[in-house]
Amino acid sequence: MPDEITVQELDPERFIEDKVAEIRSAVGEGTAINALSGGIDSSTVTMLGHRALGDRLRTVFIENGLMRAGEPQRVAAVFRALGVPVEVIDARDAFFAALAGVTDPEEKREAITQTFYRDVFGRIVRESGARYLLQGTILTDIDETVAGIKRQHNVFAQLGIDPQETFGYQIIEPLVQLRKDGVRVVGRALGLPKEITERIPFPGPALSARVIGEATRERIEIVRGATAVVERLLSGTGAFQYMAILHEDRVTGMRAGERDFGLQIEVRCWDSVDARTATPTRLPFETLERLADEILRDVPGVVSVTYNIAPKPPSTMEAV
Amino acid sequence: MPDEITVQELDPERFIEDKVAEIRSAVGEGTAINALSGGIDSSTVTMLGHRALGDRLRTVFIENGLMRAGEPQRVAAVFRALGVPVEVIDARDAFFAALAGVTDPEEKREAITQTFYRDVFGRIVRESGARYLLQGTILTDIDETVAGIKRQHNVFAQLGIDPQETFGYQIIEPLVQLRKDGVRVVGRALGLPKEITERIPFPGPALSARVIGEATRERIEIVRGATAVVERLLSGTGAFQYMAILHEDRVTGMRAGERDFGLQIEVRCWDSVDARTATPTRLPFETLERLADEILRDVPGVVSVTYNIAPKPPSTMEAV
Repeated sequence: MPDEITVQELDPERFIEDKVAEIRSAVGEGTAINALSGGIDSSTVTMLGHRALGDRLRTVFIENGLMRAGEPQRVAAVFRALGVPVEVIDARDAFFAALAGVTDPEEKREAITQTFYRDVFGRIVRESGARYLLQGTILTDIDETVAGIKRQHNVFAQLGIDPQETFGYQIIEPLVQLRKDGVRVVGRALGLPKEITERIPFPGPALSARVIGEATRERIEIVRGATAVVERLLSGTGAFQYMAILHEDRVTGMRAGERDFGLQIEVRCWDSVDARTATPTRLPFETLERLADEILRDVPGVVSVTYNIAPKPPSTMEAV
Repeated sequence: MPDEITVQELDPERFIEDKVAEIRSAVGEGTAINALSGGIDSSTVTMLGHRALGDRLRTVFIENGLMRAGEPQRVAAVFRALGVPVEVIDARDAFFAALAGVTDPEEKREAITQTFYRDVFGRIVRESGARYLLQGTILTDIDETVAGIKRQHNVFAQLGIDPQETFGYQIIEPLVQLRKDGVRVVGRALGLPKEITERIPFPGPALSARVIGEATRERIEIVRGATAVVERLLSGTGAFQYMAILHEDRVTGMRAGERDFGLQIEVRCWDSVDARTATPTRLPFETLERLADEILRDVPGVVSVTYNIAPKPPSTMEAV
């Protein structure tokens, strides 16, 4: 396990200086590559890498079709404003092809991971000529996995890089001694805006984790619309996390006076300190009614909206 | 259409006297039969029929396995206390056999109707020798159907009684000039307790309408448990209707520290005047939390509970 640097011990300016030097020393005259998701970890790594390597860092943002409304554009704009070039790769077809017919939550997660590492980012890495891979791994990510060499071998395997070749590749993980709170401090010191540093938790499989059953383009579009309403209305509540979930069950509704089986959206809004336990936020009923009204108005096909009232445990934050 | 008697015009004592006389005159020295569900309409007809015919009315209560916890026993006890004999027929096997593998809401409804009329009650009527069938049809039931002869022929056809034989049968519908409010007044005048006259609306297909997907014995048992919690906690709210719905979608939960795909119960509680439009009752959050806690505690396999926040329209009161 790497030595932890707690947020109390952390001197962000010195940390940045040290990591920039380490990255420069590791990469030398070579080139590096990293994938930016817009989350705090990969955003902080992008800033560190850019400060260390300038143009010798290639940062790609994989548009997987599962992001929130306007998210690829917003993330690219944030980094453009910071003078950091980001290449947006449209890989939507690859992800939706991999998700076709997949309904089991674990299989969905696996399809997305495989598509990301092997088919999309793996290909880019292999074709790039870059031998240095910057990753936003944090201490929490490796708490429960086998640390060190074996883990890094796994990353190369995921990327479709032959173990015989891996001597030529190196993974650089500048954040591996930090936890989330420390990364936020470093990210702020690197000039990342609040939109990135204070972003509510968002799952790796993105909106596919917000769809029960198959994550088709159409169903992702529906949950994307509902997510936009939920985030607009709940961003001021101070809640830990909030989300819209598209159910697979059809429920009866009325459209133009006719019975019509329609869609149901579940809204969850959580109060939590560390995500280990959580309780539904006691939203005012006016807010719940407004959530329902705007989702029913803005999202085609939805006839029913519910609000989660069960705590974690036995519930979990995400439904899928 | 029958002449309507509005609740303002209604003189319940005179109405009862008239209908008792009409039933006696129609049945003469014959025997009559009726099915009691425990709803206000069939309960009122049972009281009128008993007053008119005494032992010459045979009242059957079909236990279809889809009732709420303790309901067959409670209904039988109410009528026993009023001196009215009720025969409880255990037809659970027939209903669950008919529902096996049926997931479409309309097909479920049809399976229950067919089983009730043709297989269970139809057989009892045909074997009973009774030629007079008392029914709790009210004016609202026939507003949108073809009134009169054709409708009555349909009832006989549903009962599996050959149209050639129907000359021998007669349907008596003493409540057909009333609406629900009028029936309540008559029911009270006949001595029916509040438990019957003020019962919240309950759908014809009973708990099978509260299960999305297949209504197996196990799934009905689950929604029955959740319904008991919901009725216990919400009966004092003055709401128009309240219910628990078992979803077919599985959601992630935690049991004993392990991820576990579990069941979701949706609670609906409606404010409404006439069921044509309705809004979710603004329950205090304490009540919502108690609903979730008691459902999670009492109902095996449930890991998630939601509260409906969408109005009718575009939602409907029932989900199935």
